[in-house]
Amino acid sequence: MASQHIAQPKFSNSQRILDLFRIQIPIIQGGMIWNSGWRLASAVSNAGGLGILGAGSMYPDVLVEHVEKCLKATDKPFAVNLPLLYPSIEEHVQTILRYKIPIVFTSAGNPKTWTETLQKEGITVVHVVSSAKFAKKAEDANVNAIVAEGFEAGGHNGREETTTFCLIPEVRRNTSLPLIAAGGIATGAQMLAAQILGAEGFQLGSRFAASIESSSHQSFKDVIVDAQEGATQLTLKELAPVRLIRNQFFDKVQEAYAQCAGKEELVQLLGRGRAKAGMFLGDLVEGELEIGQCSSLIDSVESVEDIIQNLLHEYETARQKILI
Amino acid sequence: MASQHIAQPKFSNSQRILDLFRIQIPIIQGGMIWNSGWRLASAVSNAGGLGILGAGSMYPDVLVEHVEKCLKATDKPFAVNLPLLYPSIEEHVQTILRYKIPIVFTSAGNPKTWTETLQKEGITVVHVVSSAKFAKKAEDANVNAIVAEGFEAGGHNGREETTTFCLIPEVRRNTSLPLIAAGGIATGAQMLAAQILGAEGFQLGSRFAASIESSSHQSFKDVIVDAQEGATQLTLKELAPVRLIRNQFFDKVQEAYAQCAGKEELVQLLGRGRAKAGMFLGDLVEGELEIGQCSSLIDSVESVEDIIQNLLHEYETARQKILI
Repeated sequence: MASQHIAQPKFSNSQRILDLFRIQIPIIQGGMIWNSGWRLASAVSNAGGLGILGAGSMYPDVLVEHVEKCLKATDKPFAVNLPLLYPSIEEHVQTILRYKIPIVFTSAGNPKTWTETLQKEGITVVHVVSSAKFAKKAEDANVNAIVAEGFEAGGHNGREETTTFCLIPEVRRNTSLPLIAAGGIATGAQMLAAQILGAEGFQLGSRFAASIESSSHQSFKDVIVDAQEGATQLTLKELAPVRLIRNQFFDKVQEAYAQCAGKEELVQLLGRGRAKAGMFLGDLVEGELEIGQCSSLIDSVESVEDIIQNLLHEYETARQKILI
Repeated sequence: MASQHIAQPKFSNSQRILDLFRIQIPIIQGGMIWNSGWRLASAVSNAGGLGILGAGSMYPDVLVEHVEKCLKATDKPFAVNLPLLYPSIEEHVQTILRYKIPIVFTSAGNPKTWTETLQKEGITVVHVVSSAKFAKKAEDANVNAIVAEGFEAGGHNGREETTTFCLIPEVRRNTSLPLIAAGGIATGAQMLAAQILGAEGFQLGSRFAASIESSSHQSFKDVIVDAQEGATQLTLKELAPVRLIRNQFFDKVQEAYAQCAGKEELVQLLGRGRAKAGMFLGDLVEGELEIGQCSSLIDSVESVEDIIQNLLHEYETARQKILI
């Protein structure tokens, strides 16, 4: 359902984010594995937000292909999400430098390792954190901005289980860097709420995972749309906490816990390739279906342009309500 | 630190809550066990909000004493929080009827059991829920309003682990009843954020637990003030999920989990009286210290009057920021 185009809200508290990324709207699309290829990233950037290629699920040659296609599909800035534990990270970094990608979002690792190298080449570095402590470490590593991601977020997540509602004010008062909120945001009203909590930009994953342009399997997009409240849960905390749809694989993990499975057994049960199987190949039974708690608020698969127009409309409608 | 008195914000979206409770400010003090005696409840009601006696930790004669003292200390409306699994619930209900308490907040049980009985006597019934599903059940039971309490909240909590940021919009679109947000709210900016998410009133627990008027032990109040992000965690999910400060008792529970303790062992480990020991008697080592995730945002023990003035100031400051 497309809403009518509306006058763009002013986002008067977002100027630092808009300037930093040279974008028009402070909406950032999360660099989700198996969802965030060139089609999604270029569509978000073309709509005035910031698209991000999810390099975590791409072999080095696949990232090159997506970067080249993204460069052809948009002349607006886009970013690459670089999980710092990615095994062939040097090759990804070479690609980023070779194609002069202007912005890199780093996650899941020490922000000190790559920040300086990238910044020396003129690249803006944003680091994703799940706690105020990690936010301060990122600030110490001289990153250009922070994404603070709450417990609600899909996929890998922090151990403190701090929710967006508590995390954003806590990070805000502990750092002075430009702050992007993530985790649980699927609507424009939630963007405004995150702004009031202290955020200057808004990173949305689940809502873009359920877009036409997402590279994930149609069955996975349908699962997001069908998800009701309580459909997801954080699990596998002994390995790396991850929020998943509660499917048959999730139930097997719960059974393993009930039988007091150790870390090794969990690693074995998880195996390899479940995220690809679930999100990219559409195996809803045995796959890992990484999605956020806010999937319950997502009711249809839309185009990126419609999603962004609707978000802007929802944001401005919510803002008008508290002006009176 | 007292802020200067300010012009009261208009709370233009809160009229249903203000009318329902006959109060001036849509701030509701959570009816927390071992914290919410007559001093706290009457102070909140006298300041224009709604004070609640926490009957869950009171013997029947103790509730009578607190009701009588509260009636002497304020001529404003106040409420009683009635956990529906309380063993001597009939005696509590008799007290509520005898003293014509105008408002009852019910929690932890089936809202159908007592709602009609209480409403027949002219009592307003509010039910606390942790999910949209339970919100709809409460609406079916004809309660007068709903408190939707997110995963962030201290003490007992829902199994879905839905956070305030996702729960409030979800409950809002599933029911039409007056909606009070709870869980994670410690500041006026968070009140405004909750309003944008769909709430008409705001229930705060932790911030009032750390008030001068709270009946909890000074050591417990100091723990709240000292708490950093990550200090609390939800545990004992096999019994009834509860959010606690991670103290030595919490560590013992974690050790029990590591050794694959069953439900019975957990019940035995928990024993009886730990909440009283921790919150009322100040046993910070072996006690259950029930407090919310937002305790990290609370920096001092203040009087109820100062807390409410500060909340109003913070709310209006946050609102002014998004008017531009």
